[in-house]
Amino acid sequence: MSTRNRRTFIKSLAIAGAGASALGFTAPSWVPDRRTADKLGIALVGLGYYSSQLLAPALQETSHSYLAGIVTGTPEKAENWKAKYNIPAKNVYNYENFDEIAANPDIDIIYVVLPNSMHAEYTIRSAKAGKHVICEKPMASNAEECRAMIAACNEAGVQLSIGYRMQYEPTTQELIRIGAERDFGGVRMVTAAAGYREGRPDTWKLKKAMAGGAMMDMGVYSLQAARYATGEEPVSVSAQSFTSRPELYSEVDETTTFQLTFPSGAIANLQTSHRMGMNTLDVRYQNGWARLEPFQAYRGIQGVSSRGSLDYPVVNQQATQMDEDALSIMEGTAVRVPGEEGLKDMIVVDAIYASVAQGGSTITL
Amino acid sequence: MSTRNRRTFIKSLAIAGAGASALGFTAPSWVPDRRTADKLGIALVGLGYYSSQLLAPALQETSHSYLAGIVTGTPEKAENWKAKYNIPAKNVYNYENFDEIAANPDIDIIYVVLPNSMHAEYTIRSAKAGKHVICEKPMASNAEECRAMIAACNEAGVQLSIGYRMQYEPTTQELIRIGAERDFGGVRMVTAAAGYREGRPDTWKLKKAMAGGAMMDMGVYSLQAARYATGEEPVSVSAQSFTSRPELYSEVDETTTFQLTFPSGAIANLQTSHRMGMNTLDVRYQNGWARLEPFQAYRGIQGVSSRGSLDYPVVNQQATQMDEDALSIMEGTAVRVPGEEGLKDMIVVDAIYASVAQGGSTITL
Repeated sequence: MSTRNRRTFIKSLAIAGAGASALGFTAPSWVPDRRTADKLGIALVGLGYYSSQLLAPALQETSHSYLAGIVTGTPEKAENWKAKYNIPAKNVYNYENFDEIAANPDIDIIYVVLPNSMHAEYTIRSAKAGKHVICEKPMASNAEECRAMIAACNEAGVQLSIGYRMQYEPTTQELIRIGAERDFGGVRMVTAAAGYREGRPDTWKLKKAMAGGAMMDMGVYSLQAARYATGEEPVSVSAQSFTSRPELYSEVDETTTFQLTFPSGAIANLQTSHRMGMNTLDVRYQNGWARLEPFQAYRGIQGVSSRGSLDYPVVNQQATQMDEDALSIMEGTAVRVPGEEGLKDMIVVDAIYASVAQGGSTITL
Repeated sequence: MSTRNRRTFIKSLAIAGAGASALGFTAPSWVPDRRTADKLGIALVGLGYYSSQLLAPALQETSHSYLAGIVTGTPEKAENWKAKYNIPAKNVYNYENFDEIAANPDIDIIYVVLPNSMHAEYTIRSAKAGKHVICEKPMASNAEECRAMIAACNEAGVQLSIGYRMQYEPTTQELIRIGAERDFGGVRMVTAAAGYREGRPDTWKLKKAMAGGAMMDMGVYSLQAARYATGEEPVSVSAQSFTSRPELYSEVDETTTFQLTFPSGAIANLQTSHRMGMNTLDVRYQNGWARLEPFQAYRGIQGVSSRGSLDYPVVNQQATQMDEDALSIMEGTAVRVPGEEGLKDMIVVDAIYASVAQGGSTITL
C-alpha cells in the first residue's frame, strides 16, 4: 500500500469508526465535488513577508495544492505576483471585490495571512464565499472571534485549519508521540521560550487594535508547545508582562512570562518576547527529558532526549501543512489543526491578558 | 610572581586603594593574630550529608584550611569522625557545650551546616565565640535573621562567608566576567531552573519551622544566578508556587516560579523544584547568549556561549571555597561571598513568599 493509499485508508477508518467522533468529525458535508482533482487551488489573502517569502515558495513544492489566486490591495504587488507565479487575472482580487471569489471555481481554499485583527472577518467572509479556510496563527483577537469563525465555517460546510506549522513537523510529532505514549512517563514541567527582536516602529504588531504584541505573535508557540507536549488543556494560568521600550510597546506586550497548570499536575513556565530572539523547548518527564532547539523555526528543528537524538528529516513545513490540509479536504477528513485548536489557545491568551491586567492573579480556566 | 603572591598583592592593593570601599571593606579589625599560620582550623557544625560527603572530603584537599573540629549531637558520629579524620577529643563538641569552643585556639572558622532555621542562632553564637563563620546557603530563614547575623559578626570582629559554591567555580566566574565586561552587551533575559526530586517523607526540608521548601533549598541557586549573571539587584519580583504532593508539601513549596526585573531592564524567569531534577542557566545578552548546564552541580559545570565553549578546569568547589575564605581571613581581606550577599538573596526570597501569599502580585524591592 503506498503512503498515500495507506493514509487514505487510515482516514477512511477514522471516518467509519469510533475515531471520527473523537476528532469532532460528524457530517462530511464539505467533501468537495472536485474530489477527483489532483490539486486544490489556494488563494493567499495578504501578500506580506510570510506569503511572499514562505507560502508562495512552498506552493512551488506542493503536490496536492497550488497557488491559484491572490488577494491584495496593492496593484503593483498584483502585477508582480501574476507574472512571477503565472496567476490568471481572473484569480486576482482586491479588498473591494473580495467576496466575488465565491464564484471562482479555481479557488478551493483561502489562506488568510492578514494582520491578526483581520483574521476573523476574512475567515468568515471566506466561509460565506463557500471556500475552505486556512487562517494564520494566532487564530483571532480573542476567543469570542474564534467561536464566530468556527460557527461560520460549520454553517457554510467548509473546513477551517489554523496555520500552526509545528504539528506537521516530524521532530515535533515525535515529541508529541513521546508524551502521548508516555515513553518517559508523565510530563512534569514544560519550559519554552519563543521570541525575536522586533525593531520596526511602524509595524501593526505594535497596535492593540490589530491584536499585536509578543504574546499574540510568538507566545502562542510557547503555549502550543506546552499543550502538545502534555497533550492536556491547562486548568489555570498566571502571567506577567514587561516592557523595556515603552516608546514602542505602549499598547501591547513586549515580553510576557506565563505559568500554566494541567490536570495531571504538569506545570509550564513559558515566555515570549519581541525584545530578543529565543527558541527553546524543554520537557521534563517523570523519567527523562526532551529538548528542542530551535522548536519553532521555519526550518531545522533539532531535538535531543534522555534517550538520544530526536532529529528527523527537515521538511518544508508550509508545503507539508498545505498539502496535508488539501488532502484532508479532498478526502473529507478533519484537518490536523482545526479551528477548535486555535480557540483553545485563544481561551488561554484571553486569560493571560486578564491575569496581567489583574497584577498576575491566577485565572482558573 | 606566583599565583599566591599575585593574589596577595592584588588584595593588598584593594585594601590600600579605592577598591577597598567598593568591596564594603573598611576596618580590618578581624585580621587574625595567627596570620603566619599556614592553615586555619575549621570546625563543622552538623554532620549530615553535605558535611560527611562533600565538606570533610574537600578538607582533605585544602591547602589553607583543615578539618580541626566537629560539633555533633550524635556520640557515634563523633567517634567515627574522630577516628576517620584524626580529630583530637578536645576539638569535638556537642550542642550543650558548643559555646566552650570560644576557648579553643585550634578552631579559627566555624562552618554552620545545620538545617536552615538554625543558621542564625549558630552563626551568632559562633561570632560571640570569636570565631569566623562560614554559613551554608540559604543564609537564614529571612532577611531579619540575616541582618542580626551580620551585626553579630561585625560586633565580634569576625568574618562571615555564605557557602554559595558557584562564585568560586571557574566557568561560573567566566559567566560573571562576560556580564561585567559586557562581552555581548547588556543582559536581556536570564532563565534558570534548579531542582531535584526530594522523596524523603521525614526530611526537615518539608518543615516551615525549619525554613524548608524548594525556594529556600534550590531556588536560591536560580536567584543567585540571575544576580551574578546580571551583576544587578532586582527591583521587582513576582512568584507562584505549585504542589503536586500536598501530603508532603503541606507547609512549604514544592515548585516555585518567579520573575525578577533589574534596573537595566533585564528580566529573569526562574524556577525551582523539589519535584524533579533540573539544572540549567540560560543568559541572553544584547548580542549573544551563554548557557550553563549543569550550572549548580557539585562538579562538572559545563558552559557554551555564542562565541564557543565555556569549559574550564573542574575544581573541587568546596575545597576552593574554604581555602579562599581561609586565605581572605589570614590576609585580612573581604571574603568573596560575605553575609551581605546572603542578605540580598533573602530580601528577594522574603518578597517571593509575600508575592505567593498575595496571589502573585508584583512586589517592589
